[in-house]
Amino acid sequence: MRVFGIDPGSGRTGYGCIESSGGRHRLVICGSLAAPSSATFPQQLEAIHEGLASLLARVRPDCVAVENIFHAKSARSALKLGHARGVALLAASEARLPVIEYAPAEIKRAVVGYGRAEKPQVQQMIKLLLGLDAAPSPHDVADALAVAICHVHSSTGAVAERIRSEKPASKLRSWRAYRP
Amino acid sequence: MRVFGIDPGSGRTGYGCIESSGGRHRLVICGSLAAPSSATFPQQLEAIHEGLASLLARVRPDCVAVENIFHAKSARSALKLGHARGVALLAASEARLPVIEYAPAEIKRAVVGYGRAEKPQVQQMIKLLLGLDAAPSPHDVADALAVAICHVHSSTGAVAERIRSEKPASKLRSWRAYRP
Repeated sequence: MRVFGIDPGSGRTGYGCIESSGGRHRLVICGSLAAPSSATFPQQLEAIHEGLASLLARVRPDCVAVENIFHAKSARSALKLGHARGVALLAASEARLPVIEYAPAEIKRAVVGYGRAEKPQVQQMIKLLLGLDAAPSPHDVADALAVAICHVHSSTGAVAERIRSEKPASKLRSWRAYRP
Repeated sequence: MRVFGIDPGSGRTGYGCIESSGGRHRLVICGSLAAPSSATFPQQLEAIHEGLASLLARVRPDCVAVENIFHAKSARSALKLGHARGVALLAASEARLPVIEYAPAEIKRAVVGYGRAEKPQVQQMIKLLLGLDAAPSPHDVADALAVAICHVHSSTGAVAERIRSEKPASKLRSWRAYRP
């Protein structure tokens, strides 16, 4: 499974793609997109959109994972963030990729095991989980990789859950229960 | 001058293009874009972006005018609105069109003459200014036409201002002052 994580931001947008099989993760690509500061706001959005569109075409992930934000410091910062997030979701939709959203606490819990983990903890865990030489930086890159890892963990969890709840599993349980 | 006004919204995005020459305005096209309610949020954004991109290619305006929002009811509504506004600004940038932003009060002042005008007043004034048979409805369409008209009025105003502040104009004024 190849998951492309995005951490949209009005100034800089982090991205990170990982490949996972059987509990092992491999880094495919990661980085951040930023327009020159001389660019107008619409041009900045175009840079984010164009960058993500070409990355998605290149790495061909199975899905896109993105942080789901309902709360922001202020309406003004939410509005700015919304613009960047809008063009990121658009790029995913145009590439015909499903978008899965995760709450910030879910992401931290999946990566660090604790919903209120600090940014350096997230960066260190990503370094460990992906077997990197250094913690990914700036934090937008780490956050993009974190949401991608969160999706892998959640999907694996969901699969495990589904298998447990399926008939054969319950039969197995009852068979076990009948054996002394 | 051909101005394309956009009133982005997460549910429905209004648009309106007008052509102006010498104080007279003519409606080129107006309407609203909405995705089926069954569409996912990224698909809704794609519908807005695709719709605006094809309209801009068809009507070939000189510029795009859009309401500049800094305040929203809540961070959550600002975030949702930001997504729609982001893909709208992207469509304008991709079409290599300048984007001009106006504050809500500026728009109302330009159209109705009063910065705190109510929506029905704006709709009625647009009907009058464009010589329409009926007031444009829903209000997203009226709001898109309002920001386009605001840009025409402001540009004309700016041109008038520039002419007034230029040397010949001040000479004219001083010439007048010297005449009894």
